[in-house]
Amino acid sequence: MKHFKLAVIAGDGIGTEVMDEGIKVLKYYLEKTGYATVSFDYFPWGCEYYHKTGEMMPENGLEILKDYDSILLGAVGYPGVPDHISLRDLLLKIRQGFDQAVNLRPIKLLNGAPCPLKFKTPEMIDFVVIRENVEGEYAGNGYFENRGTDAEVAYQTGVFTRKNTDRIMRYAFDLAQKSEKGKKLTSVTKSNALNYSMVFWDERFKAIAADYPGVKTENNHVDAISMYFIQRPESFDVVVASNLFGDIITDLGAALQGGLGFAASANLNIEGTYPSMFEPVHGSAPEIAGKQVANPMAMIWTVKLLLDHLLPAYKHDSIVDAIEKTLVDAKTLTPDLGGTAKTAAVGDAICQALTF
Amino acid sequence: MKHFKLAVIAGDGIGTEVMDEGIKVLKYYLEKTGYATVSFDYFPWGCEYYHKTGEMMPENGLEILKDYDSILLGAVGYPGVPDHISLRDLLLKIRQGFDQAVNLRPIKLLNGAPCPLKFKTPEMIDFVVIRENVEGEYAGNGYFENRGTDAEVAYQTGVFTRKNTDRIMRYAFDLAQKSEKGKKLTSVTKSNALNYSMVFWDERFKAIAADYPGVKTENNHVDAISMYFIQRPESFDVVVASNLFGDIITDLGAALQGGLGFAASANLNIEGTYPSMFEPVHGSAPEIAGKQVANPMAMIWTVKLLLDHLLPAYKHDSIVDAIEKTLVDAKTLTPDLGGTAKTAAVGDAICQALTF
Ligand SMILES: CC(C)[C@H](C(=O)O)[C@@H](O)C(=O)O
Ligand SMILES: CC(C)[C@H](C(=O)O)[C@@H](O)C(=O)O
Repeated sequence: MKHFKLAVIAGDGIGTEVMDEGIKVLKYYLEKTGYATVSFDYFPWGCEYYHKTGEMMPENGLEILKDYDSILLGAVGYPGVPDHISLRDLLLKIRQGFDQAVNLRPIKLLNGAPCPLKFKTPEMIDFVVIRENVEGEYAGNGYFENRGTDAEVAYQTGVFTRKNTDRIMRYAFDLAQKSEKGKKLTSVTKSNALNYSMVFWDERFKAIAADYPGVKTENNHVDAISMYFIQRPESFDVVVASNLFGDIITDLGAALQGGLGFAASANLNIEGTYPSMFEPVHGSAPEIAGKQVANPMAMIWTVKLLLDHLLPAYKHDSIVDAIEKTLVDAKTLTPDLGGTAKTAAVGDAICQALTF
Repeated sequence: MKHFKLAVIAGDGIGTEVMDEGIKVLKYYLEKTGYATVSFDYFPWGCEYYHKTGEMMPENGLEILKDYDSILLGAVGYPGVPDHISLRDLLLKIRQGFDQAVNLRPIKLLNGAPCPLKFKTPEMIDFVVIRENVEGEYAGNGYFENRGTDAEVAYQTGVFTRKNTDRIMRYAFDLAQKSEKGKKLTSVTKSNALNYSMVFWDERFKAIAADYPGVKTENNHVDAISMYFIQRPESFDVVVASNLFGDIITDLGAALQGGLGFAASANLNIEGTYPSMFEPVHGSAPEIAGKQVANPMAMIWTVKLLLDHLLPAYKHDSIVDAIEKTLVDAKTLTPDLGGTAKTAAVGDAICQALTF
């Protein structure tokens, strides 16, 4: 039987609480299916660690993580630690350091989830966003001029290499080609205003599309697609976007699904050179931390993405089905969904709802 | 009586059709109220002009426009002319060339407009977005490396000066201070990932907030606010955003209002050195052009913003009221709203619905 060694960074706030439930479901699922065994090493990195050590993770953090099969991350961020430190020095460092080029985020409305849109049924909200994850607007390049004076200027430079742009697009085209829905790929652009990065993005999209004659393609400006997500989510199948645009539209997508309580994500190193990382899209929500009221469904859905990655020979949809069953039953839900159940009880309920 | 000289760039596609109705309502309103007289000079610039001349507007276009009291723009863009030419060489050139630092966009759901959200009433969707309009991500700075090779890289640099950042923020704070709603200003950031531009943006927001103790402030990341617009639009009063972020969230806002058929905008030169420009947010929609099916309501709402600018001593809300009445009556609506009326008939109906 296969054995997987996972690194766990539960992180801050509700990160630890939802992580417990993710791991609970993962263990239960693997025990029952017998697909693999799994062991966990926990790393107490994050903002508390920063308060003690001045670093979000040890300097050799990537070295420590590099031999794990995958990384599970809860949530990072805490009042008092500036966001650009807590995120850039851990989350973004791992994404970029481990060349996790693809950020995959399913947007799928489950039965029983509170969709904010009129007239949209679960069948109509079901697509996937492929977000570039190692460069683009998040490259971190920039500088200040005349710092601290009235003549001050801040510059922020997005970096789009052909290598990474082509890689993310090929991944998205491959996925669209296999899709059972529309075999359609939508590229998110803003080439009418961003005259280098997005003109380049469009060029590469067009060039690579030539290799995928079976895939229907479409270009939407990021402003327009934000509107289309609301007006006609049913028209999307696979969507490919830059780092920043992917960030924005996946939060929007999360809203369509009923909120961040349902938003799962995978940060994939597609060559298998480094571990991939799996994390819910939500943050650490310090205001509700430690009370066992956080909804663990996004974390549990994230575990499903981990399984897709580690055990691609099997389908793991039963995990999402179990989340859906728990939603429809509506007996064991956290307060964000109108229930009174504890975080741990939701994890238990989802285990019970699993069918094999 | 005051007299205003307006420059009219109706532009491409449905631009000319909606412009006719905007001007119809403007003339009628000024005749009836007697607030001012107005004259129009038409400039046939845009993509057709580009096909003939190779330019979107004459080289001395700004020189020609500069002595008008204001500019009315319909819509620009046409298949066959790359977007980054049609927009950068006309729309963005005027915004930047005339230092139209403020892009003001009301997000307001009218009775009778098709809101896509459950449980949200017109009272709950009523706020304004102030978008930085001359620099930021749209500065147009960038370059290519190793162009055309596998080692190709595109760089796009956002430029944030203290001068323009402070100016847009002060404008937004002033507006929030006068607001009858919440006296609340929300700043749209992404400082957890954009470590120069948005860290700087946050610094300036904090610095300027000190001068406005009466205004409640809030920072939202652009991804998060995209979700909040859907989940709790009622919590917003005035929102200030960079050029790109403002672009994205105002299309999202337009969706909440019932679509681009209702999205008006003002590009304001607040010092009065150059003319301001008024345009609906929608594009030229070539696929429906020339058929008299375009909804002119956004253009007519835009005329209201023009009046606010030219004649600030009066309130011009009756124009928006007349649009709302026409919506509620539901007798004279274009096909996008489920009606069968022609564009011109909607303009007539709105004139009839005006009360003085
Ligand atoms: C926390 C933040 C840096 C991060 C991002 O912008 O990528 C988050 O919003 C996400 O979507 O994973
Ligand atoms: C057409 C485009 C360049 C423009 C922009 O991005 O500013 C439009 O989307 C807008 O919002 O006015």
